[in-house]
Amino acid sequence: MIERLTILGVGLIGGSLALALRKAGAVREIVGVGRSPENLQLAVERGIIDRFTHDARAGVAGADMVFLGAPVASIVPLALEIRPALAPGAVVTDGGSTKATIAEALRLPYASPPEYEDGDKETPPAFVPGHPIAGTEKSGAGAAFAELFEGRRSILTPVAETPQWAVERVRAMWAHAGADVEIMTPAHHDTVLAAISHLPHAAAYALVDAVRSLEESSGQSILGFAAGGFADITRIAASDPVMWRDIFLANKPAILQALGTYEKALAELRGYLEADDGAALERYIGRAKLARERLPVGQVKPTL
Amino acid sequence: MIERLTILGVGLIGGSLALALRKAGAVREIVGVGRSPENLQLAVERGIIDRFTHDARAGVAGADMVFLGAPVASIVPLALEIRPALAPGAVVTDGGSTKATIAEALRLPYASPPEYEDGDKETPPAFVPGHPIAGTEKSGAGAAFAELFEGRRSILTPVAETPQWAVERVRAMWAHAGADVEIMTPAHHDTVLAAISHLPHAAAYALVDAVRSLEESSGQSILGFAAGGFADITRIAASDPVMWRDIFLANKPAILQALGTYEKALAELRGYLEADDGAALERYIGRAKLARERLPVGQVKPTL
Repeated sequence: MIERLTILGVGLIGGSLALALRKAGAVREIVGVGRSPENLQLAVERGIIDRFTHDARAGVAGADMVFLGAPVASIVPLALEIRPALAPGAVVTDGGSTKATIAEALRLPYASPPEYEDGDKETPPAFVPGHPIAGTEKSGAGAAFAELFEGRRSILTPVAETPQWAVERVRAMWAHAGADVEIMTPAHHDTVLAAISHLPHAAAYALVDAVRSLEESSGQSILGFAAGGFADITRIAASDPVMWRDIFLANKPAILQALGTYEKALAELRGYLEADDGAALERYIGRAKLARERLPVGQVKPTL
Repeated sequence: MIERLTILGVGLIGGSLALALRKAGAVREIVGVGRSPENLQLAVERGIIDRFTHDARAGVAGADMVFLGAPVASIVPLALEIRPALAPGAVVTDGGSTKATIAEALRLPYASPPEYEDGDKETPPAFVPGHPIAGTEKSGAGAAFAELFEGRRSILTPVAETPQWAVERVRAMWAHAGADVEIMTPAHHDTVLAAISHLPHAAAYALVDAVRSLEESSGQSILGFAAGGFADITRIAASDPVMWRDIFLANKPAILQALGTYEKALAELRGYLEADDGAALERYIGRAKLARERLPVGQVKPTL
């Protein structure tokens, strides 16, 4: 049971976590922290939080669990800001979609010496880097719903300084919310996310940009003919530019590696076409079709 | 009114055209030609065609309109094969998703001297290159439905040798089927399709291939974490390898141009990331978001 959960950033993810934990009877009190009074008021009206404040340090006082639902670029500053105000033994976790940068920056400020255990009065606060793989195209407390995490994965990426008792408390929280918890290194998380989320976003942005540029150079309408296939493949290109700028910057090394692999894959395909190599084209397309069939699409919900 | 329509390839497109024209009362008799007796029998049972034959030349005898619903690589051979068996003044059109290669190859065999008009007894058969921009993920006569073309575009790409009367007859046919007819050059058609359909397919194949390759080199599961966003953007990578091999080869120049533009767009994005240029990243992503908002997505149906 979480006695007091403080959520910094009561949006789709933080709000849905609150609703899921309430539904599971796994939390006693929930405090919201954010900048928008309208969003926080709506969160109170929807029963997501019990009360709110705009002051992060005041908000986390006395909390035994803190969830940082802020944009990826704000997580480290926020975690450092609240650090002095945390109660002994408080556990902080986040939902940022890149992990290596965050885990590295908070490694020392949240290091918890191994002599302390969960429940000890003097135990320093701990930080457990996390990322629930869930989402929809909507945002804000108004979009939150209790079932968002059901059957979805929530990834935790503890480092050497992260105490096991803190990992277990965050794992239990996500399990109560209905998620399947996976533990991996921050680096592997970032490779996975670069591959299945960040690279597809880059591919979609570049695709729209290329078509826009082809339209410009042809001087005739092209985008006006786009139908469902193009709309499907570029849907994620409608995401927020500031949020995605920050995700790209935060996961730079893994994304550059994924982009390099993608550029090689495109060049291979182009080479077969240039050489009129029908057999190689067919093999290449068939291999992609087979790989795609391995996706867990049965489990897919609106997403990532 | 079409007196006798012969459809070579009674699949999703040809079958839906037949159903739409019947519904509009715009055709008297429909003959199907194909290889699979099961598919043709099903087409008879569904009221798509009145009768069928496996012999293309016998099938087109006496037809005033012929629709080639065959795969893109079979259209030219088929059009040449039936040429001697066509009635005077018969109009042949197709649904192939690339146009320059087809229009060029049939330019002379179907040239119709300007002294002949529609209705003249001696008028040679004409060929009008066409491409209805419609489709679903299903195929075969069983997937056909009368409403497939409603509100969708059907593109005609006549060349200098294509008589105007033949263009008007094909235009009237697609209008009866509910489509908005657009006339453009074969080259512009191929540029448009390369941009909005062929390039996105190439991008999706390469994306799946890149992730497969990242998974291989990391030695850990990656595809298993893919959620809705990745499934959306790679949905078209589940298309038939043989069909797409042929489309790539048939539209090679336009696709290579589109791929080159895409590779430049990706390299631009990568450059901004390598330089940690947040402002340029944000501008780039914002520009893609704006261009995507110009898509006629309101009209989008399952597709292309």
